[in-house]
Amino acid sequence: MFDFWIDYPTIEQRLKTVCSIIEEHVTVRNKEIQDVLIDFTYSGGKMLRPALFFLFADLGDPHYKKTDQLTKIAASLEILHMATLIHDDIIDDSPLRRSQVTVQAKYGKDIAVYTGDLLFTQFFELLIESMNGSPFLKTNAQAMKRLLLGELDQMHTRYNIHESIDDYLQSINGKTAELFWLACLEGAHFGGLDTENQERAGEIGRNIGIAFQVFDDILDYTSDSGTLKKPILEDLAQGVYTLPLLFAKEQAPAAFAPYLNKKAALSLAEAQEVADLVVRYGGVEKARDFAVTYTQKALDDIDLLPEAPSKAKIRSLTELLLQRNY
Amino acid sequence: MFDFWIDYPTIEQRLKTVCSIIEEHVTVRNKEIQDVLIDFTYSGGKMLRPALFFLFADLGDPHYKKTDQLTKIAASLEILHMATLIHDDIIDDSPLRRSQVTVQAKYGKDIAVYTGDLLFTQFFELLIESMNGSPFLKTNAQAMKRLLLGELDQMHTRYNIHESIDDYLQSINGKTAELFWLACLEGAHFGGLDTENQERAGEIGRNIGIAFQVFDDILDYTSDSGTLKKPILEDLAQGVYTLPLLFAKEQAPAAFAPYLNKKAALSLAEAQEVADLVVRYGGVEKARDFAVTYTQKALDDIDLLPEAPSKAKIRSLTELLLQRNY
Repeated sequence: MFDFWIDYPTIEQRLKTVCSIIEEHVTVRNKEIQDVLIDFTYSGGKMLRPALFFLFADLGDPHYKKTDQLTKIAASLEILHMATLIHDDIIDDSPLRRSQVTVQAKYGKDIAVYTGDLLFTQFFELLIESMNGSPFLKTNAQAMKRLLLGELDQMHTRYNIHESIDDYLQSINGKTAELFWLACLEGAHFGGLDTENQERAGEIGRNIGIAFQVFDDILDYTSDSGTLKKPILEDLAQGVYTLPLLFAKEQAPAAFAPYLNKKAALSLAEAQEVADLVVRYGGVEKARDFAVTYTQKALDDIDLLPEAPSKAKIRSLTELLLQRNY
Repeated sequence: MFDFWIDYPTIEQRLKTVCSIIEEHVTVRNKEIQDVLIDFTYSGGKMLRPALFFLFADLGDPHYKKTDQLTKIAASLEILHMATLIHDDIIDDSPLRRSQVTVQAKYGKDIAVYTGDLLFTQFFELLIESMNGSPFLKTNAQAMKRLLLGELDQMHTRYNIHESIDDYLQSINGKTAELFWLACLEGAHFGGLDTENQERAGEIGRNIGIAFQVFDDILDYTSDSGTLKKPILEDLAQGVYTLPLLFAKEQAPAAFAPYLNKKAALSLAEAQEVADLVVRYGGVEKARDFAVTYTQKALDDIDLLPEAPSKAKIRSLTELLLQRNY
């Protein structure tokens, strides 16, 4: 996972420390679970959320910063992300995550439920250790709640042929963009930026998060399992209709209806036909334009951030999103 | 659920307020989930944990108490309990809880996972609203962690013919007694008792919790589904070997081995035979004595609590445990 950060050595170093903090916090009696959690910590996520947190914190006054506090907050962001991934994989019945067999596929849903729960407790433990008494505790609890509500929204619209683009946006705003918002906002706050820049940081995070999720959803239609390291058309098979499909369906509802009406009975070959339709009716292209718009919004706001060496890094990281094919 | 508290009108009233607080906090966009949560809130749990919390808080100086704060803490205890019940039922594949179909049986495991997660966020939200800045935030996070570790211990020893009485105690100490410990300790603390009595309260809670769980486990062998309002021999069928069986197995290992070696393949008729063996070899009796010892320890400590009207209520509630057949 650290390869991704090879050009950002100060981030790479701090992310390694974050992993150690996570490793320390997931010490449990049950060796099996502990191995699961440690494997998962080191299994190749890019750790975008803690990285963004550090980059925004670096914009602030260096005298203001407390390294230990910042590292713990960064770890809390990654742990919350890990917890939701483990529970998502239960819902999705996903066999693979980060090129590895998922916790639920390897150990069963039972272990996966409690492992995710345990990570939620570590999330709060780290927050309490790093910011007890701060109003940001409440911000974190609310962000976690909105994140879960986003997941519930997505679940609720499964196999719903009438799902709208607004439904989709509401869901990804919660399930993905919320945590990017939190990471950037917290980075700016605990890095000592003024209120205006804290809000701006949160907004940048939210827009990056939306673009990130849309690109991810595009890859479900365009990537193959070798590149993306996870099975393609997985969302479609699970009845999760994402932006490329929603845009294409707007163009040609009648072409999609016979497929989508089959719901869970859609075959793999039919899913491939749907994917072809999504490309043919411009869904992928339109979704890409949509993501580019959000990336551009983020870039415009990044220009307004205070000058500091990490500003260029935030910019280049955001631009990387435009070339996503990993 | 309030029938149980008919002799304790001040508690009954406050538990109703706790339910309203919970209802307010589980407002979510998804109506289906919200209905699940509200049904579950009012579905007949005795709300022992918030009740004990109030009873211990009542021991303290009445001028010290902040009603709103106490109600929120009481609600947090019940919400944490509800969250773990919902996730437990996923693990156990339980069809019934509190005489009602479980969340997972009615709506599927997916909804149950996120519904439980959502309750965890409400737990923290309530804590942050009621005690931000207090060292008790950490106490709560740690209690939640130990509670989950207790659940994991239990899962880890499933179908393990070598499970020891110590393994069992470690598990129930986490999964059940920890929350009773927390409820009584927090009640004493936020009611304004001195440190010695806070510790005593926690100890009383822990012993009540252990006795409560052992009685519950006895009922799995002696009750029928009409009285207990849940299927009997459920633990045994799930490979959870509890104290009555462990005591009986000590007396006659060879009688149990052929059954337990069948693990998940044990038939319903065979489970009934195991239950008969548990009674015949004195497992139920010995487990009852064990629970009585813990109840007695709690009663001895209750005598040492400061004099206050609620002390007699704590005592009579604890004695009720000795006649548990509900």
